[in-house]
Amino acid sequence: MKSFINVDDIGRLDKALAEAMEIKNDRFKYQCLGKNKTLLMIFFNNSLRTRLSTQKAAMNLGMNVIVLDVNAGAWKLETERGVIMDGDKSEHLLEAIPVMGSYCDIIGVRSFAGLTDREYDYAETVLNQFIKYSGRPVFAMETATVHPLQAFADLITIDEYKTVARPKVVLSWAPHCRALPQAVPNSFAQWMNAADVDFVITHPEGYELDPVFAGGARVEYDQMKALEGADFVYAKNWSCPGVTRPDDYGKILSRDMSWTIDRSHMAVTNNAKFMHCLPVRRGLIVTDDVIEGPDSIVIPEAANREISCSVVIRRMLEAM
Amino acid sequence: MKSFINVDDIGRLDKALAEAMEIKNDRFKYQCLGKNKTLLMIFFNNSLRTRLSTQKAAMNLGMNVIVLDVNAGAWKLETERGVIMDGDKSEHLLEAIPVMGSYCDIIGVRSFAGLTDREYDYAETVLNQFIKYSGRPVFAMETATVHPLQAFADLITIDEYKTVARPKVVLSWAPHCRALPQAVPNSFAQWMNAADVDFVITHPEGYELDPVFAGGARVEYDQMKALEGADFVYAKNWSCPGVTRPDDYGKILSRDMSWTIDRSHMAVTNNAKFMHCLPVRRGLIVTDDVIEGPDSIVIPEAANREISCSVVIRRMLEAM
Amino acid sequence: MKSFINVDDIGRLDKALAEAMEIKNDRFKYQCLGKNKTLLMIFFNNSLRTRLSTQKAAMNLGMNVIVLDVNAGAWKLETERGVIMDGDKSEHLLEAIPVMGSYCDIIGVRSFAGLTDREYDYAETVLNQFIKYSGRPVFAMETATVHPLQAFADLITIDEYKTVARPKVVLSWAPHCRALPQAVPNSFAQWMNAADVDFVITHPEGYELDPVFAGGARVEYDQMKALEGADFVYAKNWSCPGVTRPDDYGKILSRDMSWTIDRSHMAVTNNAKFMHCLPVRRGLIVTDDVIEGPDSIVIPEAANREISCSVVIRRMLEAM
Repeated sequence: MKSFINVDDIGRLDKALAEAMEIKNDRFKYQCLGKNKTLLMIFFNNSLRTRLSTQKAAMNLGMNVIVLDVNAGAWKLETERGVIMDGDKSEHLLEAIPVMGSYCDIIGVRSFAGLTDREYDYAETVLNQFIKYSGRPVFAMETATVHPLQAFADLITIDEYKTVARPKVVLSWAPHCRALPQAVPNSFAQWMNAADVDFVITHPEGYELDPVFAGGARVEYDQMKALEGADFVYAKNWSCPGVTRPDDYGKILSRDMSWTIDRSHMAVTNNAKFMHCLPVRRGLIVTDDVIEGPDSIVIPEAANREISCSVVIRRMLEAM
Repeated sequence: MKSFINVDDIGRLDKALAEAMEIKNDRFKYQCLGKNKTLLMIFFNNSLRTRLSTQKAAMNLGMNVIVLDVNAGAWKLETERGVIMDGDKSEHLLEAIPVMGSYCDIIGVRSFAGLTDREYDYAETVLNQFIKYSGRPVFAMETATVHPLQAFADLITIDEYKTVARPKVVLSWAPHCRALPQAVPNSFAQWMNAADVDFVITHPEGYELDPVFAGGARVEYDQMKALEGADFVYAKNWSCPGVTRPDDYGKILSRDMSWTIDRSHMAVTNNAKFMHCLPVRRGLIVTDDVIEGPDSIVIPEAANREISCSVVIRRMLEAM
Repeated sequence: MKSFINVDDIGRLDKALAEAMEIKNDRFKYQCLGKNKTLLMIFFNNSLRTRLSTQKAAMNLGMNVIVLDVNAGAWKLETERGVIMDGDKSEHLLEAIPVMGSYCDIIGVRSFAGLTDREYDYAETVLNQFIKYSGRPVFAMETATVHPLQAFADLITIDEYKTVARPKVVLSWAPHCRALPQAVPNSFAQWMNAADVDFVITHPEGYELDPVFAGGARVEYDQMKALEGADFVYAKNWSCPGVTRPDDYGKILSRDMSWTIDRSHMAVTNNAKFMHCLPVRRGLIVTDDVIEGPDSIVIPEAANREISCSVVIRRMLEAM
């Protein structure tokens, strides 16, 4: 595997899930694979789970790890071409990327959407420059439009907790005080479309996800109707993806608190498990009693980030 | 050992001191203990000695180490329950802690006192949530009310430098330009009370330490009288502990520069060794000539932080 | 080797170059040398290449690495003696340095010139305190006046790319929007003077480098004339070194954009390779077409930082 961005990159999902279980049962099984190999994790944005779980996964595989916070301790990077660099950015990505590639064997990149220029964000400009110029295998640690390590961990979690062969999985928009990217819902939709589940998306009008990721997934605008009989409720906020309302890309279209997942929402489900990628804003996305309740699986879901990442890095190491 | 907060957690002090000497003579003796084990160090506040010595100790024991600066590169964490999280804090400790616990084997936490709410600080609210929710052994890397790795290192240092069986140890308050927590004097008092030393505390009126830590330790308000015949002078500033003056908790009560430890203070001692946990403000806590003089042992004292921490982590690894 | 600051510290250059090639052919050859040894990297300033390449080099040699960003997560450090420390600096270098030394085996220091006090900068005040008080081997990761890991990597690169026995190497000043230190040109001049090359420096009047570093190197004030027949063009900005114009130390004397290296400059050379230490400001130092062109070797030059650093650390480990 040379890059890990979309669900296609991981190949057959049943095989990927089997590898995940193998690694979960013995996290250090492939420790010799990473000897004298270095992972470089590059953060243009904040991180908790990704920062920790990715380091842990790489160390499980015997790798050395270098963490680079670009905005803390390094130089600010220019991403545009053809400019006279007389501002606050000391270095161009076109130099920085191959240099970074020369000191490591695998690169993980976190670079969020700016949410002002849809074309720039959806072209995955930063990620694609890493793929093109680093000379190394690159995986997304949440980029402008995707968060595949999260979606893979979500799939592992659903596979572990499902009680029926083909569970109903509902991705529900929920309100938030800030405009958030679409990376998590995009990847979740892409992975659920590829998995053997009954997948439904619910959100207010205007929040339609890009068909590149949501594909033919069923959209039900009535949240309560969508949640009926659900086996898994995946709550998440996102800002306007700019599909049906191009001029509103990256904006908050609704602050409707009736979408906050509470007991009444969970009551219409089939004793659904509650999921969220975290970090979660309590009182906006979900109530305290639901996220702390017995059907909340957000902690094991987060713990599976170590597993999904281990599978991805192992694949990259084996392909060298 | 499941947690390391108070002197009781380490058990018999003579045994702990013997282990410290064993590790000091061969720092890598227990290197196999930490194989495939990960220490997560979580900093809510700045650190130099703790940051370096704890990493060193864990690496001596063969562990992997992940350092997380919560306020640099991660999400700001909400610590209150029942709030609608629509402010600047993206994640609740109640999710963050078990998630962090899932990626590591042992957790070290640094979280200073806020010095505005005595009840909150002295309840060790943040530390106790880590103990309760992380599912991992937790040790304090200076928390709201304690700094046991420092106190243990202090004890080791006194044990190494003492010339009489039962030395006189004087903890002396000294002035400072900022309001500082009581964690260091609290732990030092607690450990000295448990050790076989003649322990005296001296400070201006109003700086009485909490009896939970200071116990029945002798308090002498006349600094010069307290220092007479001392074998060890341990200088430290702290703000009002709020014991005798509850309304002044966390405030600076005195800026009396006559308390700054200088040659005249050292002259009345029994050629006492000068100690301080560092960082130290020269000219406020102590004069240049005393801290640079032949009786200053602040550097070997700091070096013993690697040793005290090695003993603590070794105990935690062995208890797994 | 106890310290690595000047070209003399590395001894015979032909031997150092041979070691560099040996390590480049097998980066992990001396991995057992660093077992249970810890490198402490201390940054008072930003870093990308040095941060990554030095970690990589130390890990190649089997060392543990601790990275300390002094201004992010640690205490601000006082560097003056005899002051009452009642400002924003919590700790004095005189305590901090031996403490840091006690937790590691080798120290790397980055501490840039302040550019306001020439005497202070050129005395290498911070670096020399580390050498004097840390008790450890110390190497410069760019300090006030030198950047020897870069100059050594430059020499390795020139050795690899030269097509004649004694190439002509031209160090050319180029304009920049900020006042930059002289560390890179100082070290480059010092190393080129020691190497078997035909070395020429070109810059506007007033930018004369300190003779301690530039020695008897030929200075040609006509840039185009200097570049004639060059085999290597090394572009770099620096601020006034205060040699011929002492009152202008650290200032920008020229913003003349005719010094920006473009095709017309490269045209008068002997198909010269273009070099720069990076980060580079495009449009000021060099045009896009030159730095992206086939004769630009800035990326392999940066990659050689891992090699130069490996040689230096290996020497220090072997000398223990």
